[in-house]
Amino acid sequence: MSHFLHQVNIGNQPYRTIWKSFDGWSVTIIDQTKLPHLFETAQLTTVEEAASAIKAMLVRGAPLIGATAVYGMCLAVHEDPSDDNVKKASDLLIATRPTAVNLRWAIEAIKSKLLAIPPEAREAAAYSHAEAICDEDVKINRAIGENGLKLIRKIASSKNEPINILTHCNAGWLATVDHGTALAPIYKAHDAGIAIHVWVDETRPRNQGASLTAWELAQHGVPHSVIVDNAGGYLMQIKQVDLCLVGTDRTTSQGDVCNKIGTYLKALAAHDNNIPFYVALPYPTIDWSIENGLTEIPIEIREESEVTHMTGCTSEGILQTIRLTPENSPSANYAFDITPARLITGLITERGICSASHEDLLTLYPEKASHSS
Amino acid sequence: MSHFLHQVNIGNQPYRTIWKSFDGWSVTIIDQTKLPHLFETAQLTTVEEAASAIKAMLVRGAPLIGATAVYGMCLAVHEDPSDDNVKKASDLLIATRPTAVNLRWAIEAIKSKLLAIPPEAREAAAYSHAEAICDEDVKINRAIGENGLKLIRKIASSKNEPINILTHCNAGWLATVDHGTALAPIYKAHDAGIAIHVWVDETRPRNQGASLTAWELAQHGVPHSVIVDNAGGYLMQIKQVDLCLVGTDRTTSQGDVCNKIGTYLKALAAHDNNIPFYVALPYPTIDWSIENGLTEIPIEIREESEVTHMTGCTSEGILQTIRLTPENSPSANYAFDITPARLITGLITERGICSASHEDLLTLYPEKASHSS
Repeated sequence: MSHFLHQVNIGNQPYRTIWKSFDGWSVTIIDQTKLPHLFETAQLTTVEEAASAIKAMLVRGAPLIGATAVYGMCLAVHEDPSDDNVKKASDLLIATRPTAVNLRWAIEAIKSKLLAIPPEAREAAAYSHAEAICDEDVKINRAIGENGLKLIRKIASSKNEPINILTHCNAGWLATVDHGTALAPIYKAHDAGIAIHVWVDETRPRNQGASLTAWELAQHGVPHSVIVDNAGGYLMQIKQVDLCLVGTDRTTSQGDVCNKIGTYLKALAAHDNNIPFYVALPYPTIDWSIENGLTEIPIEIREESEVTHMTGCTSEGILQTIRLTPENSPSANYAFDITPARLITGLITERGICSASHEDLLTLYPEKASHSS
Repeated sequence: MSHFLHQVNIGNQPYRTIWKSFDGWSVTIIDQTKLPHLFETAQLTTVEEAASAIKAMLVRGAPLIGATAVYGMCLAVHEDPSDDNVKKASDLLIATRPTAVNLRWAIEAIKSKLLAIPPEAREAAAYSHAEAICDEDVKINRAIGENGLKLIRKIASSKNEPINILTHCNAGWLATVDHGTALAPIYKAHDAGIAIHVWVDETRPRNQGASLTAWELAQHGVPHSVIVDNAGGYLMQIKQVDLCLVGTDRTTSQGDVCNKIGTYLKALAAHDNNIPFYVALPYPTIDWSIENGLTEIPIEIREESEVTHMTGCTSEGILQTIRLTPENSPSANYAFDITPARLITGLITERGICSASHEDLLTLYPEKASHSS
């Protein structure tokens, strides 16, 4: 078990978002659909359960989706290490969420690795691969935190009051194995004694901001306010935002960013008000094979009920789902949008900060130069 | 009773949004906080009840706020027509909502009128004034509908498929005495047989889109889909929006528009994607005394609970309020933002369509030229 390097304690208990259970083979996750009202873990014992947990968003966030999928492959070979089962499990997991690219790559990598070795060696190899993937994610995010800290430190040095950072959705430790991507620099800065206040976009329809980011920040003691997704533009107009900092589900080789629906609107407002807009970016989310986010990234369409209904906590402490819309009104539910590179001030990666352009990405990832045309 | 000229029948019953009750003096409104789940009316018998109905948003929308406030003055002089009571009632009503300007002007106009005549004549004069205000609002909105219809007809003529119109908040008949402002052209176009589909922004935090606009459109049979406020940008990116059409709470002499929070973000996206962005504009919302929306219009800050909690209907048909955020997370709740004139394609008024500029507004309202410097 390697989940003792945590940044965040919940009720004095250190947590990662995913770990191998004490039985030595099943997988435990935090059920994120119950937060912030209930902190519950769920045990995954089959690849089908892992796929369901991804699809129903018990786990979400590109890095954590990747880690959960790889653990799903472990569960598959634990049950049946045959070639057929490895292929079937890969297909099942890849189909769960179409937009994040690291899911596909993580599955393709472990699939090749497993098919190259004898069935009897596959279970041990799978778990060892999954643990390595998780440890690498933690390492990447720690580096993103350190690189982003420099940026926040610079902005803070030119202001006497707390700096206001706006974030969208949840790119915190709950979206990764630990630390987070966009929130990693915020935690680092807070821990370094820099006065920060975070504007947390609610992030409809699934409210990952109101339910997950707010909860994470509250646990860590970082001052924050939850706002509706409509509010960020006005806050920028009245100069109450010093920096926008978000995550990404997939980034093109040209620096276009596909992130939770609504990110593009905040990037437009930041651009219109000369406010720096940064994206925190672990390298597995970069898709070097594509250039144009709008034409080349498939955007997931999710269930209408995510728009028409909402779940929360009654005053009696009971989780309750309510309908918001008229019964005969349909809805549409696109999960992501594209923020074009021209609206992005910079990308914060584990290797450093660069501008959102192919040329600048290659300065950080020179080994990818062969992909450039 | 003049509420038989209605555009919309609810359960075969024609309705305006406000009318003098059958007792001849009290005022009946539709309690908009219960929609779309329950259709209930509320009776207002005192100016305090009228002020509460405005503040708690049983009625909302700049034109309907103005009409309700004027009826509140009727209730005040019905009880006590003294100078003192006229002044006290005016102050109470003006303080209910700071952003919409026609509220203040409507109250100042009726106050001057009442103070200029003997107390015993005030009640009859007040009711007659209120009815005239309501009838004028209906007339204005009908004209906005006709002017906007020409614009929609033009857009529809260049497209073989249904045209997609995105709207924010509720600027329908529920926001006015009848017909609506931004929705008036949509109803006219639908009735004229033009194929239309409306993207209805949910409009957090109070969900006027999901609860009121969707309900109105469903009652009228206009095809529509409810979307989260985050979605409009992506819909514009993928060319699924042909026109944005919104209302306004206050418009400056230069054409800046103060409307429900989030309007600015949609205007930015429309501008970025070359999509026409129009504002429907009854003349009482124009504030000729100010130029710059951002520096001169007070933006109402409402209760945090509108962000942290939400009310809807359980599967058992019961209205239930749920909490969305962690208990220890604060929120901030600005009600409006400013869409600068440079992002607005045109203003649709009862006198015609013009660009969002002082010069062009004066071509429609030449009598206001004396205000220009």
